[in-house]
Amino acid sequence: MTQLGQHARAAAECLAQTDPELKNDALLKIADAINQKRDLIKTENQKDMRDGESNGLDAAFLDRLLLSDTRIDAMIEGLRQIVSLPDPIGEISEMEYRPSGIQVGKMRVPLGVIGIIYESRPNVTIDAAALCLKSGNASILRGGKEAINSNQAIYQCIEQGLQQAGLPQTCVQVISTIDRSAVGMMLNMRDSIDVIIPRGGKSLIERVSAEASIPVIKHLDGLCHVYIDDGADLSKAFNIAINAKTRRYGVCNAMETLLVAESAAADLLPDLISALIDKEVELRGCARTRQFNPAAIAAASDEDWETEYLAPVLSIKVVDNLEQAITHINHHGSHHTDAIVTEDYTRARHFLRRVDSSSVLVNASTAFADGFEYGLGAEIGVSTDKLHARGPVGLKGLTSQKYIVFGDGHIRH
Amino acid sequence: MTQLGQHARAAAECLAQTDPELKNDALLKIADAINQKRDLIKTENQKDMRDGESNGLDAAFLDRLLLSDTRIDAMIEGLRQIVSLPDPIGEISEMEYRPSGIQVGKMRVPLGVIGIIYESRPNVTIDAAALCLKSGNASILRGGKEAINSNQAIYQCIEQGLQQAGLPQTCVQVISTIDRSAVGMMLNMRDSIDVIIPRGGKSLIERVSAEASIPVIKHLDGLCHVYIDDGADLSKAFNIAINAKTRRYGVCNAMETLLVAESAAADLLPDLISALIDKEVELRGCARTRQFNPAAIAAASDEDWETEYLAPVLSIKVVDNLEQAITHINHHGSHHTDAIVTEDYTRARHFLRRVDSSSVLVNASTAFADGFEYGLGAEIGVSTDKLHARGPVGLKGLTSQKYIVFGDGHIRH
Repeated sequence: MTQLGQHARAAAECLAQTDPELKNDALLKIADAINQKRDLIKTENQKDMRDGESNGLDAAFLDRLLLSDTRIDAMIEGLRQIVSLPDPIGEISEMEYRPSGIQVGKMRVPLGVIGIIYESRPNVTIDAAALCLKSGNASILRGGKEAINSNQAIYQCIEQGLQQAGLPQTCVQVISTIDRSAVGMMLNMRDSIDVIIPRGGKSLIERVSAEASIPVIKHLDGLCHVYIDDGADLSKAFNIAINAKTRRYGVCNAMETLLVAESAAADLLPDLISALIDKEVELRGCARTRQFNPAAIAAASDEDWETEYLAPVLSIKVVDNLEQAITHINHHGSHHTDAIVTEDYTRARHFLRRVDSSSVLVNASTAFADGFEYGLGAEIGVSTDKLHARGPVGLKGLTSQKYIVFGDGHIRH
Repeated sequence: MTQLGQHARAAAECLAQTDPELKNDALLKIADAINQKRDLIKTENQKDMRDGESNGLDAAFLDRLLLSDTRIDAMIEGLRQIVSLPDPIGEISEMEYRPSGIQVGKMRVPLGVIGIIYESRPNVTIDAAALCLKSGNASILRGGKEAINSNQAIYQCIEQGLQQAGLPQTCVQVISTIDRSAVGMMLNMRDSIDVIIPRGGKSLIERVSAEASIPVIKHLDGLCHVYIDDGADLSKAFNIAINAKTRRYGVCNAMETLLVAESAAADLLPDLISALIDKEVELRGCARTRQFNPAAIAAASDEDWETEYLAPVLSIKVVDNLEQAITHINHHGSHHTDAIVTEDYTRARHFLRRVDSSSVLVNASTAFADGFEYGLGAEIGVSTDKLHARGPVGLKGLTSQKYIVFGDGHIRH
């Protein structure tokens, strides 16, 4: 592991200086290699699938593990998209003259070495390696042991692409031992890893946060709310609520709790409740919500307001006013993504300012909270931290900025 | 300590929403209180000074501890300067329309609760509290036990100012126990502190980094270099070298190692060495440097290239070329602040890109690496980390940005 760290540090020094064309060439050659080795990848993936089945992994897990032709095509397409993004490294901004005569600004630089720890999905191997490479960072990847054969096959493609482009193969390294202690070591390689990004379920992320002595960019729960304000446009409210809940259930930006101003409840909820029931969404509500359909809406427990269902389940609460909605969101939510539907200028401004979440939306579905929709081009995750990166993390989230100063022989008096 | 943390969290929620005028009013009232309680502050400070003397603290330590009228005036002036800075909170930027029709951008928000751990200088109490308050963050301050009486007196002024402005006194809290275990507890209050900023000597910062389970914005060594390039303007080179070394010796942005291209050595070094000797700077050099004055220049050891003297000592090395200079800086330096003196466009660009330091300067003295000179208005420290903040950290370094989205009923397809 120490040697791996040293190799990564050396590769990072090299990558920080690498021209955009060369990095893009490597990404395209990796895409070509994946296309060429498509059969090998599927064969190795089948081994993982068989092992997973005989080890009794559940259907959702096996689905995430599977690499079909469609998913392999998506990996290739993802690489081409990353190639098309502007190179963030070396970007100079904010160059301003100071009273002393010096000109001061910032230059964007890579973070150095990024460690990625992930679980079942083998396509993360390509995504993570590509985003790190494009942003000039060396990466050390540690995938789930259940995907080990798939990841090895994908890594062969990465190695081939790097080699054909003339870049050190150590720009991307994979920890292939199934020994779990490797993760523990990785979390404490302070000299050779600059930041750890865990991608996976809550237990992985909690373990990484608790054990790491290296900074972590992490994504915990997405307990997202939509608040329907007094006087909201009911058609916008209906559409946004349906979209935020039912577009996809298992994603972090799905609505889990709907808050409705008391004054809007009678006009909105009967239709909305029917529509949600038609879509087979299980409903849990406060007393004021349940009166609209006591038979179909279970009583919400205290725990419901704290639960990220990631499933066709929704809790609904009627609140007195905006203030109560904001308090509910800031205290029961996960500071991920929350939306208001309103036509009132002052209350929109108030919600935007007061809600302490990585994304705050007005009259738009929480489903938009995503790196692609925000124009980042790609995302390595969504940060629920405040330090360094907050919200969807794209290429710039994998960089830092140094100060640069131009003078003409200036000295300080 | 738990209660203190809860109070800080509640105060942070309040401060995040506080208008700029109210925060500024509190800062001005704190300044008034310091002016009114000037005698109390000096009396309490004298207790600390007497205790320090009888405990055998050295002269440099006692000097940092002393609060003279001049230093109290500087504290008041510092507060007024912070009042005059633009309020960073709520700033909206980068609002761009996306193909979906939503408009996406960022809003600047406070980090939450900031823990500051510092050593002897009691004026840090005011600086840190004021920068945190202005940036909408609650703060928990833990000063050195040697300054406990001074800090208590200053804290009385802070309390009075907050109270008079109508803000909770828990916006700023001071840990006044002299029990060292309080620091250990503070470093692990993950629920109630968002970031720790240590200010002080290397041993403090190393302890904090090693023990904290909370993110740390830290400032380690400032081993700064000036490189005089082939064909540099000799008068710029001479002035910058003298300024970077002799303006102040004990500061982190002082030059500790001078690198000179071999082709420039004979023209520059004889005069520069004489001038440095006149200023009583002790010189240590490589063999090629020593030939210019073997009697006055000691042979530099390997350790010299790794040493932040913070004293009138300079090591000088003649290097073959730019490449060797960059390699020396990146491997022996501390990634703090490094400068090149050159007239060559391509080599200037190369140095800017390749040197991996928080500040990289061309034809300007390293002495400029400072929050005031860079236009930040004030600084809470200089970060030698890459994550979150790098280089001088001002008000914006104490903030984060959340995404905000404006729509007109937009849903995601």
